[in-house]
Amino acid sequence: MTTILGIDPGIATVGFGVIRAEGAKIELVRCGAILTPAGERLSLRLSQIYHDMLELIDMFEPDAISVEELFFNNNTTTAISVAQGRGVAILAGQEKGVPMYEYTPLQVKKAITGYGRAGKKQMMEMVRRLLNMDEAAKPDDASDALAIAICHARFSLSLLSIQGVNSPCSTI
Amino acid sequence: MTTILGIDPGIATVGFGVIRAEGAKIELVRCGAILTPAGERLSLRLSQIYHDMLELIDMFEPDAISVEELFFNNNTTTAISVAQGRGVAILAGQEKGVPMYEYTPLQVKKAITGYGRAGKKQMMEMVRRLLNMDEAAKPDDASDALAIAICHARFSLSLLSIQGVNSPCSTI
Repeated sequence: MTTILGIDPGIATVGFGVIRAEGAKIELVRCGAILTPAGERLSLRLSQIYHDMLELIDMFEPDAISVEELFFNNNTTTAISVAQGRGVAILAGQEKGVPMYEYTPLQVKKAITGYGRAGKKQMMEMVRRLLNMDEAAKPDDASDALAIAICHARFSLSLLSIQGVNSPCSTI
Repeated sequence: MTTILGIDPGIATVGFGVIRAEGAKIELVRCGAILTPAGERLSLRLSQIYHDMLELIDMFEPDAISVEELFFNNNTTTAISVAQGRGVAILAGQEKGVPMYEYTPLQVKKAITGYGRAGKKQMMEMVRRLLNMDEAAKPDDASDALAIAICHARFSLSLLSIQGVNSPCSTI
């Protein structure tokens, strides 16, 4: 039984999703989001993300943390802001000695729906079904984080070679 | 007497520069760079930056940390990478309870040379002269970090209003 903590990085909202995986079987443990106040100073928002991450790791003792890789085509201001949050989230995992892995949005989509062009609603619905949830996880960032956790479960179990996805699992 | 730690953020190289300021008088304390190995995992590089920052703060006990704001026009990959490093550097300052300030590259240039279009060599030469150094600080990132520290010294002393720069000093 492996516990995986999926993280959808951000500065205002950091989605998290905890699942347990055993073979092809996965189950939901908990999901939610770290929310930092918009008017707050950057240093305090980063500190909150860092300490909440440490707490999540203490609480759920994950065997692995799976983090989405950031891709931004044009908005560097958003990219910089989100990346600062991602940096401290990764630092928290490192301080706690948890192995970390990263996946591109494309890899996550393929792992969940089997192809890379899945829409947001379709992704949320698949996550809901895969984890036997009555309703889709909220906020969206929590559902995204669960998708990232499931992605790692599937990659680390090499189930994805069946689906023709054979990108290596990248450690960070 | 105020001790200011200037930081030029990065992931491979984090420049740092420590100065002491009293009134209009400034003096060099120390400068250098935190270097992280290129082949190393991101999580370990972030951890090194974080712990080296904590150590610098313990060593020099700065009254203020001055950090450059990031601006990238097109290269989001570099922006993301540098921003992750900036996030953990700011976290270190926050964990140690040091007040932090940020300045744009334009503000730094104006504070050092009096105008916003100064070139890199000109900036390094002005930093060298202002701090009575025999040679320009090396690596370049250390000189940049000293410029950021001097910028804060000048802004916090409101000397810059003389030069027609009256942007507020932004806390982070």
